[in-house]
Amino acid sequence: MDPDFARLDEYLDENGLEGYAFHDDASNSDLYYVTGFSAPDPLFAVYTPEATGILTSSLEYGRAKTEGRAGVVKRLSDYDFHAKREDHDSETAYALVVDEFLADLGCDSVAVQRRFPVGVADDLRDNGVNVTVDDDGVVSDVRATKTDEEIEHVRTAQRANEAAMARAEELIRGADVDDDGHLVHDGDVLTSEDVKEAIEIELLRHGCALDETIVACGRDAADPHDRGSGPLAAGEFVIVDIFPRDKDTKYHSDMTRTFLNGDPTDTQQEWYDVTEEAYRAALDAVEPGVSGEDVNQAVVDVYDDHGFPTIYTDPETETGFIHSTGHGVGLDVHEKPSLARDGEQLRPGHVITIEPGLYDPDVGGVRIEDIVVVTEDGYENLTDYDISLSN
Amino acid sequence: MDPDFARLDEYLDENGLEGYAFHDDASNSDLYYVTGFSAPDPLFAVYTPEATGILTSSLEYGRAKTEGRAGVVKRLSDYDFHAKREDHDSETAYALVVDEFLADLGCDSVAVQRRFPVGVADDLRDNGVNVTVDDDGVVSDVRATKTDEEIEHVRTAQRANEAAMARAEELIRGADVDDDGHLVHDGDVLTSEDVKEAIEIELLRHGCALDETIVACGRDAADPHDRGSGPLAAGEFVIVDIFPRDKDTKYHSDMTRTFLNGDPTDTQQEWYDVTEEAYRAALDAVEPGVSGEDVNQAVVDVYDDHGFPTIYTDPETETGFIHSTGHGVGLDVHEKPSLARDGEQLRPGHVITIEPGLYDPDVGGVRIEDIVVVTEDGYENLTDYDISLSN
Repeated sequence: MDPDFARLDEYLDENGLEGYAFHDDASNSDLYYVTGFSAPDPLFAVYTPEATGILTSSLEYGRAKTEGRAGVVKRLSDYDFHAKREDHDSETAYALVVDEFLADLGCDSVAVQRRFPVGVADDLRDNGVNVTVDDDGVVSDVRATKTDEEIEHVRTAQRANEAAMARAEELIRGADVDDDGHLVHDGDVLTSEDVKEAIEIELLRHGCALDETIVACGRDAADPHDRGSGPLAAGEFVIVDIFPRDKDTKYHSDMTRTFLNGDPTDTQQEWYDVTEEAYRAALDAVEPGVSGEDVNQAVVDVYDDHGFPTIYTDPETETGFIHSTGHGVGLDVHEKPSLARDGEQLRPGHVITIEPGLYDPDVGGVRIEDIVVVTEDGYENLTDYDISLSN
Repeated sequence: MDPDFARLDEYLDENGLEGYAFHDDASNSDLYYVTGFSAPDPLFAVYTPEATGILTSSLEYGRAKTEGRAGVVKRLSDYDFHAKREDHDSETAYALVVDEFLADLGCDSVAVQRRFPVGVADDLRDNGVNVTVDDDGVVSDVRATKTDEEIEHVRTAQRANEAAMARAEELIRGADVDDDGHLVHDGDVLTSEDVKEAIEIELLRHGCALDETIVACGRDAADPHDRGSGPLAAGEFVIVDIFPRDKDTKYHSDMTRTFLNGDPTDTQQEWYDVTEEAYRAALDAVEPGVSGEDVNQAVVDVYDDHGFPTIYTDPETETGFIHSTGHGVGLDVHEKPSLARDGEQLRPGHVITIEPGLYDPDVGGVRIEDIVVVTEDGYENLTDYDISLSN
């Protein structure tokens, strides 16, 4: 992968800064994107238009050289860290090493993310380095536009996602119903946890890791962030939202379907149909040059036309459409661009979700989510999975 | 769980600070420990000796109130965030909200972790809040000492770990060997990836999540951070290092065994025996009042007596004992105390690993790791798994 850093170079130039620095671990996707390397423990790295440098422990040195894209890889011991430790505490010694490393890269003014650790920032500033916070997140902005290779990575994760969704659908739709109205599989009450386990095993088999999966039924489904727990019931919406990360490439996918075992009530069917209409309206709106806000507005308009509240038409509402239409997906499962109020302009190569939904504790929740890539003349849907509510 | 924050109160008092602030997501264990709450997106929280407060989005508000331990839970909308957004950019509006929140808690000077985001720190300082970096990590220090309930959580994770290790051992030791010297299971060459998948499925079935597992054979095993890949070979060390997190409690365990299918060479047997001797020497040294450095030294002495290099006797060595003896385990898989050079004094309730090992690309790697809790008069081993190299 060979990212285009022209936009980052421009940012540094405009702000009179020489580099863009990181001090973080594998959780920082901007750092990984810039260096092609990540490690479980925090490391220091700096991008300059001339070279990218990594400063790491001896333990990670070999991997940083072979796996990463940085032209300059140094160890703490290359700057006599242990000798400095004899005269200074660990933090001060580390800051002195970072100073020398930055000097080697000809860099004494750096931009940093808002999340850059204040401990390191204060130490660098004490040593005369200009540390300027990049409030806009220019690297996140650069990596929102995916290369063809990155799009392939998302596609691969999405294939795993579809296999896992099929397992979930099979369990939920294939379940019997007991006298209490609970779903039953192989003679046992089927729980949210059972379905999550089946999903996660399928994802593992496809080389994916995952932190969380949502299988939320009834009232659980009415809270978009609830992961779901306990027995699943017939005649209720079950939201299944899966967002795996391919272990190999580190890219995510993201998809949601809502299933119902039994016959939906008129209200349930209406909720589903209106949400599907909102989903189609959003997709119809997706093309380069349109803003994420416009796509979100297309969803809001559909819900509003059908008399459902939204947080955009009534900021106080706790029912109806109470989140945004979507978000970028890549190294992070939530990244730029945002399909929400103030959502930025869509560009070819943006990989985004479209995920309208309705929520009310008295009814439950419904959400339909696909993942698509913005193309030169519209979009390509990366999702290959049916949309249908009941058996 | 009811942590004892006396030590944190003392720290604040000594430093003339009114609170300890966080702005972070679920990855920050200090934040979770203090508030009993975590969310996928960053939230602001502050501990004061009088009350703990969380400031969050509307989406997480309900969960923060029911799941967390904070006495004060506020939403951005409680401080008119949206109105502030009309006159300010998002970051400035947020900082104004945080200021009002801190004022509500009677707090205008805060300690923060080194990892606290510089973007938020700069904004708070611009608004006159005293933000002081806590270089020593006092909260990590507090949570190093576990309550009985926390020790039970580790024990539960360790039972899952043992079940997963048994699956790995069964696959490796039960394997046939083909003409190329590769391990074979059910007619297929057995790979590191196969064993990791079996481990991870077993962990999922026991309610555990995990980021990584190490199944490293031959040269892979000679690098303590290599996760391992490809076919496993007979007559080679296979290091299996498993460190699951219980999804429910969020506590980890950590254990390593080294297996060998076939007959070990004299060198392999010697490496294993000396490592087991080092492991026993370390355990013998564990008791309250002894330092982590002392326990580490017990391991170094054994290896040194047998003529193996260590980074403590030869800082430049790339073979032999090239890491430290252990670390604390809890909400993080690596936390305080450290059993290394400068390792702090052990206290009852510290949960630590003991994990000596030897590494050389020409031989491979061997490591034996148990997890134990320091007690009033020694330690209790939380690990229940045999130590033996070959079939």
